[in-house]
Amino acid sequence: MEIIYDPAEMQKRALTARREGHRIAFVPTMGFFHEGHISLMRKGRALGDLLVVSNFVNPMQFGPAEDLDAYPRDFERDCTMAREAGVDIMFAPRRDSMYPRGFRTFVEVGEWGTRLCGMTRPTHFRGVTTIVAKLFNIVQPDAVIMGWKDAQQFLILRRMVEDLNMPIEMIGVETMREADGLAMSSRNRYLTAGERAEAPAIYRSLCEARSMIEKGERRADVIMKHIQKTMAGLQHGRIDYSEAVSMSSIEPLSEIQPGDTLIATAVFFGKARLIDNIRC
Amino acid sequence: MEIIYDPAEMQKRALTARREGHRIAFVPTMGFFHEGHISLMRKGRALGDLLVVSNFVNPMQFGPAEDLDAYPRDFERDCTMAREAGVDIMFAPRRDSMYPRGFRTFVEVGEWGTRLCGMTRPTHFRGVTTIVAKLFNIVQPDAVIMGWKDAQQFLILRRMVEDLNMPIEMIGVETMREADGLAMSSRNRYLTAGERAEAPAIYRSLCEARSMIEKGERRADVIMKHIQKTMAGLQHGRIDYSEAVSMSSIEPLSEIQPGDTLIATAVFFGKARLIDNIRC
Repeated sequence: MEIIYDPAEMQKRALTARREGHRIAFVPTMGFFHEGHISLMRKGRALGDLLVVSNFVNPMQFGPAEDLDAYPRDFERDCTMAREAGVDIMFAPRRDSMYPRGFRTFVEVGEWGTRLCGMTRPTHFRGVTTIVAKLFNIVQPDAVIMGWKDAQQFLILRRMVEDLNMPIEMIGVETMREADGLAMSSRNRYLTAGERAEAPAIYRSLCEARSMIEKGERRADVIMKHIQKTMAGLQHGRIDYSEAVSMSSIEPLSEIQPGDTLIATAVFFGKARLIDNIRC
Repeated sequence: MEIIYDPAEMQKRALTARREGHRIAFVPTMGFFHEGHISLMRKGRALGDLLVVSNFVNPMQFGPAEDLDAYPRDFERDCTMAREAGVDIMFAPRRDSMYPRGFRTFVEVGEWGTRLCGMTRPTHFRGVTTIVAKLFNIVQPDAVIMGWKDAQQFLILRRMVEDLNMPIEMIGVETMREADGLAMSSRNRYLTAGERAEAPAIYRSLCEARSMIEKGERRADVIMKHIQKTMAGLQHGRIDYSEAVSMSSIEPLSEIQPGDTLIATAVFFGKARLIDNIRC
């Protein structure tokens, strides 16, 4: 596996690879890999003959009071895991090479960035769309593989790709979970033992919501109340939001639309803010 | 010359051409060609082996009270002129293929879009950067040729290309002028005879400003006052703005910085809003 730090060098390699007829698969990440990341790389390995993974903790998507400096990093371990997953190139740019002095361009997907996670993280998605637009131009992927764990992020980026006519296929991969159902996340390492023991309640409540829908419940407020009641009973968890929205418009739903519904939630556990969702 | 209307078809052609090793030169336009456009095409002809010109009156860069519907069009004449200039592909998408239902993504170059022309056209540059980002992804150019007549537009787009790591060389071409100095513009056709007779005063005042600077004047307010006085003496013209800014920051200058100064002005003549500038 090759490690490239310089954006210009990465881009040159990518343009050459495309000219030579290679198909580039790309997994953008913030590093500190777990099985979720590896599942994206495996998918990418099957989809492209050049598999690129980026590893960049993007300051622009963190709010001023968020965990940018505390965000866990272990570059050496990441490299070992990526190599084992068959990655060809690890792209790990330095912060100032991505945001040089005078940088002032932003990509935004309208008000989609203000919903759900955007309510408590108002500049987050603008940071995500901007860095990902940059990464796409550097890595020149044919296919991009991302996790459904960050469902709003995936929907926003898919919309950006479509709206800006980027010649990229966006592929979503199901969330990887611990044995007790907790969605894998680099932020799980922030959890104390007590928080960790309680955190599976997030996914459990989402599964109960799914089961209510399967039994015919269509009233979004009834389903949301059930989730909120579960969270209210937690000792450590404090709900940020839970909402049912349309997958195609990210508009809140009063009635569940089977096939187009995203039920998403974010819950604070001490220093960690954990997100999870189901599509139904 | 081939005419392509469908964005997907244009993109497929462009991706194939790049894979085959061709160098794509691209001139984005709103049509209604004059010698200024032709000079861009000639430059493009020399720079690429596939020369693409887009012809699209972009609604997003017009304000609600602006001349979108009145904007002059003559597609057949454009095709004849482009063919004679050696254009390979004319890309003329329909409005709803560029902005389908649900479109909601924007590209912005921070506050650069609020200065100069952005003062009276607050959403203009957001419309420009968004459509041009789309066109770049569709046409996949190696080199893009644009006129210095729209200096702010050129500086903003060059910044966007750099900030978003687009693998594109941005080439500016000097403004083409009528014999009496008036900058060529599709909007000149809005002018009445009386307005047309007076309009060369714009460039004349800019040339006088340049001459003052060459003689050693460095106080921007003295130079701007001279331009404003010239405009104040016009019967038909009404100045929108005139300003000296840094080319690298688009910040207003109190002192002229030779080599980094843009003196730009916009003047209303009846229905027409004409712009011009000098760099010094």
